[in-house]
Amino acid sequence: MTPSPRAQGSYPKTPDEANHMNRNSRPAITPVAIVGAGPGDPDLMTVKGLRRLMGADVVVYDKLVSDQILDLIPTGASRIFAGKQARNHHMPQEDINSLLVRLARSGRRVVRLKGGDPFVFGRGGEEALHLAAENIPFEIVPGITSSAACTAYAGIPLTHRGLAHSVRFITGHLAKEGSLDLDWDGLADPETTLVVYMGLTNLETICDQLIRHGLSPDTPAAAINQGTRPDQRTVQAPLSGLAAAVEEADLVGATLLVIGKVVSLAPELDWFLPGQVDIDDETGSGD
Amino acid sequence: MTPSPRAQGSYPKTPDEANHMNRNSRPAITPVAIVGAGPGDPDLMTVKGLRRLMGADVVVYDKLVSDQILDLIPTGASRIFAGKQARNHHMPQEDINSLLVRLARSGRRVVRLKGGDPFVFGRGGEEALHLAAENIPFEIVPGITSSAACTAYAGIPLTHRGLAHSVRFITGHLAKEGSLDLDWDGLADPETTLVVYMGLTNLETICDQLIRHGLSPDTPAAAINQGTRPDQRTVQAPLSGLAAAVEEADLVGATLLVIGKVVSLAPELDWFLPGQVDIDDETGSGD
Repeated sequence: MTPSPRAQGSYPKTPDEANHMNRNSRPAITPVAIVGAGPGDPDLMTVKGLRRLMGADVVVYDKLVSDQILDLIPTGASRIFAGKQARNHHMPQEDINSLLVRLARSGRRVVRLKGGDPFVFGRGGEEALHLAAENIPFEIVPGITSSAACTAYAGIPLTHRGLAHSVRFITGHLAKEGSLDLDWDGLADPETTLVVYMGLTNLETICDQLIRHGLSPDTPAAAINQGTRPDQRTVQAPLSGLAAAVEEADLVGATLLVIGKVVSLAPELDWFLPGQVDIDDETGSGD
Repeated sequence: MTPSPRAQGSYPKTPDEANHMNRNSRPAITPVAIVGAGPGDPDLMTVKGLRRLMGADVVVYDKLVSDQILDLIPTGASRIFAGKQARNHHMPQEDINSLLVRLARSGRRVVRLKGGDPFVFGRGGEEALHLAAENIPFEIVPGITSSAACTAYAGIPLTHRGLAHSVRFITGHLAKEGSLDLDWDGLADPETTLVVYMGLTNLETICDQLIRHGLSPDTPAAAINQGTRPDQRTVQAPLSGLAAAVEEADLVGATLLVIGKVVSLAPELDWFLPGQVDIDDETGSGD
């Protein structure tokens, strides 16, 4: 028998798959697994997510997925980078969507690997909708989202009796460039923990607007940089001083903002703190 | 040598531990692991959480932890139920706190296992504060919180471009009995996905108040019952009809409410739906 002239070389891997392909003259489709990789530490992936990753033929991954997790991709499996950071070479969303469809139709076991959770600021919904429209089966494997992981490692409970009976996640990067068109009145709620993803760029605007709309300038706040990683750093300051404190600490890269009374518990609950920068109104800032 | 008269029989398990105990005349303290068990399926635990569980000498667990997860506790390890459901026999929070301290001081490897995530409506912060005050080392192992797990399995992205740029978690059970004293104006935000934990009891009040404070009665809404489990059921209806639909479907047990435009995607994204009840204004309700 000569190999079929199938484009892209999607040859079956197991006898079962081979039988299936011969009988149907096209490969069976394995559901595309849209997997949340969590915050970066492979130990904080779910068992299911890890299993999907280790059984993948091809992994399409984002910028936010850590090297330690990529190291778990089996030898021989393909890796395709679909990073979305503005400055880097990246793939438009439509191209990612159609790539996933093509890969699934080729009979490969496809894992779409996203930092954090695919359904929390992860655009997993858009990719799943595209797969559904193309009749490609898929599954969602949730991951620990940054706000849960980074705050746990910084000793900040998202809710706590008497301090916060609600928690809210927003992103500091909005679709409309240049304007953060948010319901500031609703956000400035002293009983709610506010977590801001990708909040570094608009940090000053966010703090200013919250104070202008009634949140106390003394509200405890923190910026968690490289959360859960060995180089995690937490900068803690009252809301009015957070922007200056973050600038002084010179934070770059993945940073999560947490604003609310629960942040006041961090000094007592700092079980994982490789290097903390503590800046406070009372003590003044040092160097 | 005769066995020491240590109360509760905390004997060392490994030669290393035995040496350590002999040298110091009291057992070394292993950090108490406060572990999020996730939604119930052991495959949705983190690798780290599972490892802690399988290495435990004693596990103190809540009502919300599933039997499949409890089955993973090693033979010979102790299990202590500290459930907190009102109708069941349960342990007051102060007793749980001091139990954890006692167990840790006895030299045992203690896992405090909580449904979902320990820092999201889990009182993990209170227990951690108590351990810290008693100088007991601890660690937080985050878990997939219900709102992420159940919505993923119901095909509802928590955020989605054009539908929700923010997500908010509240609990329907508040400390003040009989009154849900919430910032309804802030909650009635059409651009935010609202997730209500333990929302079954006050479901009607929650929907009414949201509508009264400006949220459209047509806002898509869902109640996810036994989310991620084989008997998962999703009841979907416009906000104004959710209470009636839930009553008709006769949901009991763990139920999560999701309110917001993202719920409209569920019919397209229903990859995991063992049995869905769909009730809608247009189609009317059957049965």
